[in-house]
Amino acid sequence: MNHIVWQEGVLTLLDQRKLPLRQERVICKTYEDVATAIKDMVVRGAPAIGVVAAYGLVMAATAYRESSSDSSIPGLRRYLHKVAQHLKQTRPTAVNLAWALERMLAKVIREDLTAAQVITILTEEADLIRQEDLAANKSMGKYGASLLPAEARILTYCNAGALATAGFGTALGVVRAGRAVGKVKMVYACETRPFLQGARLTCWELMEDKIPVTLITDNMAGYLMYKKMLDLVIVGADRITSTGDVANKIGTYSLAVLAKEHQIPFYVAAPLSSFDLSLEKASQIPIEERATKELSCIGEVQIAPSRVDVFNPSFDITPVSLVTAIITEKGLLKRPDREKITSLFEGE
Amino acid sequence: MNHIVWQEGVLTLLDQRKLPLRQERVICKTYEDVATAIKDMVVRGAPAIGVVAAYGLVMAATAYRESSSDSSIPGLRRYLHKVAQHLKQTRPTAVNLAWALERMLAKVIREDLTAAQVITILTEEADLIRQEDLAANKSMGKYGASLLPAEARILTYCNAGALATAGFGTALGVVRAGRAVGKVKMVYACETRPFLQGARLTCWELMEDKIPVTLITDNMAGYLMYKKMLDLVIVGADRITSTGDVANKIGTYSLAVLAKEHQIPFYVAAPLSSFDLSLEKASQIPIEERATKELSCIGEVQIAPSRVDVFNPSFDITPVSLVTAIITEKGLLKRPDREKITSLFEGE
Repeated sequence: MNHIVWQEGVLTLLDQRKLPLRQERVICKTYEDVATAIKDMVVRGAPAIGVVAAYGLVMAATAYRESSSDSSIPGLRRYLHKVAQHLKQTRPTAVNLAWALERMLAKVIREDLTAAQVITILTEEADLIRQEDLAANKSMGKYGASLLPAEARILTYCNAGALATAGFGTALGVVRAGRAVGKVKMVYACETRPFLQGARLTCWELMEDKIPVTLITDNMAGYLMYKKMLDLVIVGADRITSTGDVANKIGTYSLAVLAKEHQIPFYVAAPLSSFDLSLEKASQIPIEERATKELSCIGEVQIAPSRVDVFNPSFDITPVSLVTAIITEKGLLKRPDREKITSLFEGE
Repeated sequence: MNHIVWQEGVLTLLDQRKLPLRQERVICKTYEDVATAIKDMVVRGAPAIGVVAAYGLVMAATAYRESSSDSSIPGLRRYLHKVAQHLKQTRPTAVNLAWALERMLAKVIREDLTAAQVITILTEEADLIRQEDLAANKSMGKYGASLLPAEARILTYCNAGALATAGFGTALGVVRAGRAVGKVKMVYACETRPFLQGARLTCWELMEDKIPVTLITDNMAGYLMYKKMLDLVIVGADRITSTGDVANKIGTYSLAVLAKEHQIPFYVAAPLSSFDLSLEKASQIPIEERATKELSCIGEVQIAPSRVDVFNPSFDITPVSLVTAIITEKGLLKRPDREKITSLFEGE
């Protein structure tokens, strides 16, 4: 399933808000279209929004060359920086968005480029970001599969799958690789309120691939552990600090605490692009808060009193002390800490 | 708000499935109507279904006298036992249902009664169960309020309020009593998937009483504790064993584990009618599993793939080791255990 299609300067995205009921596509012809698609969660998942934003920058460069009165390279570069700033702000928590955009901008820093060359370089770089993400996921899958016991009963959260990445998935990449070697008995997918990425996307992805999946509500995870129905938890990440603290979908932290209480491994699968080595403390990670309506309505169905006060943080922080291992494309970080993380990046 | 109205042999119930959008009533004219109303969750909450089932038994006695060819008292008594059995099976986890029905049946055990006397006695007993439940809640409120700190920020779960009882509520009774003495700063209500009792009922009840309430999804509770936004957790109970283990709405256990991790008190407010002294072990409590559709749809909105496998237990078990205190109408059981529970009942 190719949920991000880039063709002749147009980005076509599978509308993840409509899944699993309908497979509709949203067409993005401008970087503003891309920004809206990210903000409105047509596309979501830290690696996926990095890839999509990279193509957004290509669109901006093309549009600038075609329409701007200021045809200078410095003018183009200033414009791209402004566009990147705009794209970054669409979702503040996942670092992959900023990572992809910085990487794109760094490629066109040379003074002697023409506008046409800038567009070519940006296009190639966006393609590369995408290809590398897919390769990273396959690599994570291999490393992660080695951690699975036979007949593994796996709890996963939100959607860290093909739909959240360039393909294959981070946490679900490990599930896919584990399934390929016959180790996966059952995946339990938490529905993941309020946006229901687990119910809508993870169940759909796994059912498409004929991987056994059982849907539960988020509040059932503790009971499943209490009943010894789970062997491990595996999730993705939106941002990992230099010390290994993990920002991920709201509810992840609770699962990590529950896993500790039940002595079940808690794994995070994330590419190096999800690390933010500039941050020492998890408290420095901006936590996005989203609209009240996400909690008070499901589709058009109102499920809470009108005018009820709502608190709707989209992410939480899991301290590194609760993380059994981080699975990256460069290998496993068991009992992660600053030193192990630094070494991994020095090996880059 | 009187959500259970008994008048001239007819029971009129506020339809809790329709709240908060509409205040509709369901009229029960037979015990079968009552059984359906309990099973379909027109009325829910352990004490409330006990009260309602008691009136159901009155209806059965009346109908028997009016229509049965066997007018003997033994015949009536056999019929009432059969009806009680049927009513008990509508929701297996909450013990209040069985407790109320047993109490009703015990009142008409004498051989020398006429059918008319049986009906009078049963009606008086149902009224008494109801009045006592309301009084118990007010008493729990007083005891529980003494546990609250000033400016308390309280997490509650599901709906253990007026709607779950004959009035005033168990956990929300403590909130109401605490509010009356100026101790409640904010109540955070977990939405409580899948039936959304928190979003739909607790928010509505508290807003009606102008008690400040903020709605969160269940998976946010851990993050609120991590951010030091909560002072305590208070929930109701569906059944408490002789050793103090608590069966309550699915998700309660996870909150108790999180409260322990954050050294926040975890309180259970429940009347003596919620204790089942016949049970030693929590594993003896039957855990109701409900329909797949509760997870795959919200109202008419489908939120998961068709034919997805679902696990939908309605309750979980919180071991007594995680319970800071049980608040009853006869006083507080701090760090509850078998001895303290036995003493409380011996004082009866």
